[in-house]
Amino acid sequence: MQDGLLMGVDVGGTKIAAGLVTPDGEIRSQLKAPMISREGPALALAAVVSAIDSLYAQVKSPASIQGIGICAPGPLDPNTGVIVNPPNLPCWRDFPLSSEIAKKFGVSIKVDNDANAAALAEARWGAGRGYKNVFYASIGTGIGTGIILDGTIYHGRTGAAAEGGHVSIDYRGPRCGCGKLGCIEALAAGPAIALRARAHLRQDLGTDSAILELAHGDIEAVTSEMVGSAYATGDRMAKDILLETIDLLSVWIGNTIDLLEPDVILIGGGAATMLGPLFDEIRDRLPGYCVNSRCQEIPILKARYGADAGIAGGAALCSTTFTRAESLSALH
Amino acid sequence: MQDGLLMGVDVGGTKIAAGLVTPDGEIRSQLKAPMISREGPALALAAVVSAIDSLYAQVKSPASIQGIGICAPGPLDPNTGVIVNPPNLPCWRDFPLSSEIAKKFGVSIKVDNDANAAALAEARWGAGRGYKNVFYASIGTGIGTGIILDGTIYHGRTGAAAEGGHVSIDYRGPRCGCGKLGCIEALAAGPAIALRARAHLRQDLGTDSAILELAHGDIEAVTSEMVGSAYATGDRMAKDILLETIDLLSVWIGNTIDLLEPDVILIGGGAATMLGPLFDEIRDRLPGYCVNSRCQEIPILKARYGADAGIAGGAALCSTTFTRAESLSALH
Repeated sequence: MQDGLLMGVDVGGTKIAAGLVTPDGEIRSQLKAPMISREGPALALAAVVSAIDSLYAQVKSPASIQGIGICAPGPLDPNTGVIVNPPNLPCWRDFPLSSEIAKKFGVSIKVDNDANAAALAEARWGAGRGYKNVFYASIGTGIGTGIILDGTIYHGRTGAAAEGGHVSIDYRGPRCGCGKLGCIEALAAGPAIALRARAHLRQDLGTDSAILELAHGDIEAVTSEMVGSAYATGDRMAKDILLETIDLLSVWIGNTIDLLEPDVILIGGGAATMLGPLFDEIRDRLPGYCVNSRCQEIPILKARYGADAGIAGGAALCSTTFTRAESLSALH
Repeated sequence: MQDGLLMGVDVGGTKIAAGLVTPDGEIRSQLKAPMISREGPALALAAVVSAIDSLYAQVKSPASIQGIGICAPGPLDPNTGVIVNPPNLPCWRDFPLSSEIAKKFGVSIKVDNDANAAALAEARWGAGRGYKNVFYASIGTGIGTGIILDGTIYHGRTGAAAEGGHVSIDYRGPRCGCGKLGCIEALAAGPAIALRARAHLRQDLGTDSAILELAHGDIEAVTSEMVGSAYATGDRMAKDILLETIDLLSVWIGNTIDLLEPDVILIGGGAATMLGPLFDEIRDRLPGYCVNSRCQEIPILKARYGADAGIAGGAALCSTTFTRAESLSALH
């Protein structure tokens, strides 16, 4: 396998995904492994080290690996590589992941949160390539966001910026898992779509919606994926549910444009495929939700990396710094 | 008067404020003049030129003036110095203000919107000095905001970023002048405070609140200034009204921290003096409105420049570029 490869490691609460990525963002190989996140720091570290070892075994020489980038759920400190206290990684509290990994592998190690990393991969190699300022949102069971300004992750004061999923658009609205009211995550992520579907089904008990069919008649079993599948077959109720979701996302994107006016908005995560056909609906709604008179010029695009966003993101963290000029000249 | 002075010109819908500012941000002299904004582009330009001429007359030699910075309400293009179409300046539509002024005065001319300029002055010389990333909000009849990242105004794609006053925290809330629903400007700026005061007075007709006294018993005549004056004398209803306002501002600041995690938050504008004693109330509320576990470490400070924010802001636009390192070394 070629030299100068980047290793991206995506550490989640239950699994690790890791892969080798070329300097231009092609994923060459990947593996999945269980993450041991509830049995103390040492076993958790061993699980990550083992995944890295397996990838090293695939290259002719350790020198082929240019760096290792690890992304994980926050809070973490990207400057020091310390994992602070992520709810999904109870194994690590103020754990110096970066230096522990560096002890075992003699290459550059970077650690950042998963949405920041995925945003960087998109800006560098994906749908955000060639744009100066990129706003990335991963919509799945939660909503994670990343802000890339001129090729660099915007971290804020302690690395905790870009928690866009916890921006509230309804300060008296439903309570989010984070404790705030009306966060866009509580209104428009997968679980909120499922809740909305159940409410629609309860209101319309005689419905012949495909959603109910997919759930075998059990309203409580409805998931956002079923809404997506039903929508794909032309189901009317599924479309209504997704349009309500799109409307809320449009409010949130309108706010984001008014505050940040990015050059491009990217949507990734598990719900991106389901929502993708409706991005034009967001664009149509923006003028009502945005004072920016040129808001409709800002492209809203589906992210390039789907389920591999964490691997690409990790790799992007340790790719050599580039300037936007390079990115633009690569593009044209 | 000393050499190397900066000229700051604040162009509003009805008046111009202009002044000479030292390279370290001291306002040395200033003047006010009427702005002629409803009789075509030429008379409007002449009014601005006349104010600039008056300041030139105060210096020993034209060479004493290092540059002229003009701030005006947006939308405008800070890159080209073109005034696009501000509602308060109907005189100018796609008017190349920067190049028109440059024709008459042979110095560097910069044009930017008033909140951006004021934010820069605060970051460079004021309450934001020494902080890397600064979020500034001017709260008065509207809410204008500016974002300074590492000593530079964050402009976004076309210069229309940092419209933080039009970020909605209540997507089904009251309609803002901009057309959106639930913008913080519609909930917490001066007119919203006055509306809230009138609602309180109507609900409690037998009140002995000092607000009603200041309005000579006429509920419709109540202004936000009267609420501020009543609060200063310890009036209970005025305090309730301001705490409701502070609560909404806290939601908005919590969102801002979750998205941008600035190093400092500055509050200026006409309402800053009235709200200043309540900044601690914002800090107390933040943990409920913010997922950032260290949000209370971020200082919330009153801006240095009050009514002179436009003059200082204009001057800051044409001060020579500085690095944060310089700012920090100047500070310590």
